[in-house]
Amino acid sequence: MRAPDFATVRWESPMPTRRELANVLRVLAMDAVQKAGSGHAGAPMGMADIAEALWRGFLKYNPANPLWWDRDRFILSNGHACMLLYALLHLTGYAVSMEEIKNFRQLGCRLAGHPEHDPSIGIETTSGPLGQGLANSVGFALAEKMLAAHFNRPQLPIVDHYTYVFLGDGDLMEGVSHEACSLAGTLKLGKLIGFYDDNGISIDGEVKGWFADDTPKRFEAYGWHVQSIDGMDGEAVAGAIRAAQAETQRPSLICCRTVIGFGAPTKAGTSAAHSDPLGVEEVALAKQRLGWTAPPFEVPAALREAWNHESAGRAAEERWQELFGRYRGAYPDLAAQFERRMRRGLPETWQSMAQSAIAAARAETAVQATRKSSRAVLDVIGAQMPELFGGSADLTTSNETWHNAARVLTAEDASGDYLHYGVREFGMTAAMNGLALHGGFIPYGGTFLTFSDYARNAVRMAALMHQPVILIYSHDSIALGEDGPTHQPVEHLNSLRLVPNLTLWRPADALETAVAWCEAIEHAEGPTALALTRQGVPQLPRESLSAEGIRRGGYVLLDCAGVPECIVISTGSEVSIALAAVRTLQSRGRRVRLVSMPCTQRFDAQPAAWRDEVLPPAVSARVSVEAGSTGLWWRYVGSRGRVIGLDHYGASGKGPEVMRKFGFTAEHVQAVVEELAGG
Amino acid sequence: MRAPDFATVRWESPMPTRRELANVLRVLAMDAVQKAGSGHAGAPMGMADIAEALWRGFLKYNPANPLWWDRDRFILSNGHACMLLYALLHLTGYAVSMEEIKNFRQLGCRLAGHPEHDPSIGIETTSGPLGQGLANSVGFALAEKMLAAHFNRPQLPIVDHYTYVFLGDGDLMEGVSHEACSLAGTLKLGKLIGFYDDNGISIDGEVKGWFADDTPKRFEAYGWHVQSIDGMDGEAVAGAIRAAQAETQRPSLICCRTVIGFGAPTKAGTSAAHSDPLGVEEVALAKQRLGWTAPPFEVPAALREAWNHESAGRAAEERWQELFGRYRGAYPDLAAQFERRMRRGLPETWQSMAQSAIAAARAETAVQATRKSSRAVLDVIGAQMPELFGGSADLTTSNETWHNAARVLTAEDASGDYLHYGVREFGMTAAMNGLALHGGFIPYGGTFLTFSDYARNAVRMAALMHQPVILIYSHDSIALGEDGPTHQPVEHLNSLRLVPNLTLWRPADALETAVAWCEAIEHAEGPTALALTRQGVPQLPRESLSAEGIRRGGYVLLDCAGVPECIVISTGSEVSIALAAVRTLQSRGRRVRLVSMPCTQRFDAQPAAWRDEVLPPAVSARVSVEAGSTGLWWRYVGSRGRVIGLDHYGASGKGPEVMRKFGFTAEHVQAVVEELAGG
Repeated sequence: MRAPDFATVRWESPMPTRRELANVLRVLAMDAVQKAGSGHAGAPMGMADIAEALWRGFLKYNPANPLWWDRDRFILSNGHACMLLYALLHLTGYAVSMEEIKNFRQLGCRLAGHPEHDPSIGIETTSGPLGQGLANSVGFALAEKMLAAHFNRPQLPIVDHYTYVFLGDGDLMEGVSHEACSLAGTLKLGKLIGFYDDNGISIDGEVKGWFADDTPKRFEAYGWHVQSIDGMDGEAVAGAIRAAQAETQRPSLICCRTVIGFGAPTKAGTSAAHSDPLGVEEVALAKQRLGWTAPPFEVPAALREAWNHESAGRAAEERWQELFGRYRGAYPDLAAQFERRMRRGLPETWQSMAQSAIAAARAETAVQATRKSSRAVLDVIGAQMPELFGGSADLTTSNETWHNAARVLTAEDASGDYLHYGVREFGMTAAMNGLALHGGFIPYGGTFLTFSDYARNAVRMAALMHQPVILIYSHDSIALGEDGPTHQPVEHLNSLRLVPNLTLWRPADALETAVAWCEAIEHAEGPTALALTRQGVPQLPRESLSAEGIRRGGYVLLDCAGVPECIVISTGSEVSIALAAVRTLQSRGRRVRLVSMPCTQRFDAQPAAWRDEVLPPAVSARVSVEAGSTGLWWRYVGSRGRVIGLDHYGASGKGPEVMRKFGFTAEHVQAVVEELAGG
Repeated sequence: MRAPDFATVRWESPMPTRRELANVLRVLAMDAVQKAGSGHAGAPMGMADIAEALWRGFLKYNPANPLWWDRDRFILSNGHACMLLYALLHLTGYAVSMEEIKNFRQLGCRLAGHPEHDPSIGIETTSGPLGQGLANSVGFALAEKMLAAHFNRPQLPIVDHYTYVFLGDGDLMEGVSHEACSLAGTLKLGKLIGFYDDNGISIDGEVKGWFADDTPKRFEAYGWHVQSIDGMDGEAVAGAIRAAQAETQRPSLICCRTVIGFGAPTKAGTSAAHSDPLGVEEVALAKQRLGWTAPPFEVPAALREAWNHESAGRAAEERWQELFGRYRGAYPDLAAQFERRMRRGLPETWQSMAQSAIAAARAETAVQATRKSSRAVLDVIGAQMPELFGGSADLTTSNETWHNAARVLTAEDASGDYLHYGVREFGMTAAMNGLALHGGFIPYGGTFLTFSDYARNAVRMAALMHQPVILIYSHDSIALGEDGPTHQPVEHLNSLRLVPNLTLWRPADALETAVAWCEAIEHAEGPTALALTRQGVPQLPRESLSAEGIRRGGYVLLDCAGVPECIVISTGSEVSIALAAVRTLQSRGRRVRLVSMPCTQRFDAQPAAWRDEVLPPAVSARVSVEAGSTGLWWRYVGSRGRVIGLDHYGASGKGPEVMRKFGFTAEHVQAVVEELAGG
């Protein structure tokens, strides 16, 4: 690396240098972190020159319309460096004021300690949990490639943008970086360009003691185009971006050697620069070295002007609007579909599709695994919803995620709507988040319920960001049988129900499955998980109103005459077991009600009137039946109730034998009810 | 690859060929899967030649004493290939009968659908969740390297064995393979040797569509020694093992080109061979091609004899016992320590250490974060427990996992007892599982509670295998403040409590922290998680008996005179908030009891007498206070109770402001109690 040129003090000149422009980012990061009393200035100070080169020379965006569909996507995977992003947003003209910068990390301020998804101010994704921004970016780039393949027409490239992602050592140590980048290389996402902040430092110190990868070689092994440059040389960065853009087949990684906390006299290049304020004195000395004389939170006019992107951004979008206008003229139907999908509207035919799927499910009479009932829904809606994008983490036939009209997406042909994600649960889910965030897709993806563990933090991020991804979790209990305890979920149903803003459905038969799918499609404000059986389950008896009951998350499936002595509450494959028990009890004159509760969260959100009608407060003898952990069921059965579940691991053996061994039989349910309600 | 030589029919000769020996494995796998009606024969059939070369030519083991401390460790990371392992165990002379092989995958049989940790029959780890066996193997190899550095003396290498691991495409697609193998390369685990079953097939079909990595290059980038061979050529495998052993610095990956389902006439080389029985006809034809004429589950005597390893194994162990005898003579103290550690005994001084730690905690008066109280315990016990092996996923100072006597482990010096794992939560946890499984270590490792998500399935595997690993999860609530929702756990406390056989402690002050640590050390039968605060908490008032109460998981911290009108139950940092509320209420004449419940699971396991004394069934007005999701608390507060918690994400802001915003104040607790118990 060349000797550092901290600054060339020539603000009076009309054209500030790249370094001077980058220093604005450095100074704002230092000052904001200092004022907040916490935060991370080191990474912004190291990556400032990269940001300057990218944002001023290449990035396509319009600060006045952050939602412009064909903007380049910028992802900050090393989310702790968020002051870099906030400074960029402020300087380029987004609606981010200096007052907000001063309130960085304070309660109520949009400029949180890590970036929080808010596209209205240019924050494309929530990041901070390392590796996931990078994995999101693979989804963004895949979305772009697929939309371009589907919509673009000769001379009318309405979808044509890059996905740029900043990342650090931490992102690259995380396993999800492997899953996502291996997939990106395989899929030839040529318009994905990553900038690796290779500063040699992580929180514990110099990374060489724990991270000795030859990262360029690693990414070459994934089929990426890799460059290694001095990341503090704006010209070098610009050259590398041009080369990365010129490479249209392979995704690009630009390995940028940088100095964390560049400019800070004693802390630069050390882990002391990673987090916490640098200190008043260090900041003052750093400003001196950077040639900065303006007071805190003031940006000299020449620099401010050079950074402002409002008119250039407006012009860029205007060119695209003109293009899109011509496209609309030539291809009105496609244009309408594009607009609908980018606005997250459902197809006009959605209601009739949903009704068909539900009617078909209602007509089903065979014993059928709910994973197969799920496939039946896909067979109805898959062909008519181009935005539905499926896949599985290498369990396509097990998860039943394929459908009759599905076509496999390949590196060479991006017109498919189904991706074999490989054995990459975490990468798949984080990429699905990117697809949803980009817009234009409702992604669904499958794995076994147990392996939701692998993706758990990506599921959380989908929920935190309110993204409508659909998680297909088949093999949802010990009833899966011979594959044994490693594959048998126990705690997973309850554990997923605990994730705020994630909706979990565990349907009991084809009709509940179809309703759950429709609810998932219509739920635009968060992710939905569908827990589905491996084994066949019978179709339940249905009264005319039960589809509505299903939608409400919990409803009376089989009632008794008079006030119940006892209520049995069950979900999924255990409903038919509970039903057999309740029928026997009723035949013996017992007043027992059966409630099916496919979605506890949806039930909890109902008005008290509905909840009290289904579970009358006066009836305190209640028994829940679910082949999973007991923990959350006490809420529904109350102090006097009983929970039939299991708080230990399962066993390898034939499914029905395993279920019997652990008490999931009609006889056992019956015995528990009788014991509770009196013999 | 050379043209396949399916078999050379010369069983009558005294020396069967390698291929004939390998075919025994193939046939047993086919027959067992066929009889079970489910399972995976394809991978065993592809890897049989590798297994033959390794187990007959290199592996050091004594079937009569599967626990021999210096045995080579054999890990089957592609656990679905378990019939390969079971066949090997049976043939070489472990106590695994042909009857058991015939009962493969049946309820009650030890030969489960995926290998279940049972070292008494040579199953070193539970595998099946892909990538984790590989990551375990890194822990195994690290344990060997560290024990060798600590115990071996000139001419007396009592610790000197290899770790061999079989793995497939699925293992290599999983992100945890990146974390673990990058770490293994950095740490120069030269005695770790992996065999990659490169058969080009995963469940969804030919992997080239979703897994195009240049795997040799990828592993070279990690600093591994890599060879590529024909994995169906036993001689080539043997040669590669010799070369891998000759490379003492770098871990080795032997990429073995194989054919899944080798021998099966129509299914070999396709995903149809991955799982499910091949079918009666296909099995018959395969046996024909393999030159196999014996009836199912019968092994011709010459083959059986050639496979049997009992006398060779006994001789191998005898040589080591003789060596260890000389070692014991020369270094009796070290020998005793080695034996103690391998038997999982605690140091003789343990009780006095524990008492010191508890006494020091009891004497603490300052406001102190429980993560710092945890560090104080480590400072007491760290120097005196050589088996205690610490680390953090790049958050050492945040997690307070370092201690005064700790020394960093490096590639060059394996005498340290602290590892900077890097930003690799999943790899860290799975490697810790390997360390514990190997024996000789009590591993502890830290990350933020939120990022337990990343490691979740490894935590589950520790629990499933009953391994005593200690998980240090600091920053355990929204009170961490400015880092915001991505870093603020909400659902995690309850979600971890749901994992069967994982014990979660959330201590409220220094004393509870010290007791929790001691309980964790003494709990040899499963993992323990310690949820610790970032922020300072006051020391609670203590009566003489409360250490005993803490051990019981829940106890009365502050009682009132007479029968309580209301009981407040709290954990961790909220206990002091609840305490302030209860004191105010008591000062107003209200009869309110405060229960501290640092470990709900431990409390649940107490006799009813204790539970009813702490939470008298007659007192139904109960309020729980925990800055996490509400789900599990209904069990403790009952139908009439109130749960103060949060079922939504947190916010970025100063910790105390965030806590106030979401109702975690004494005033709010007080108001809820008053409302519940009557004004």
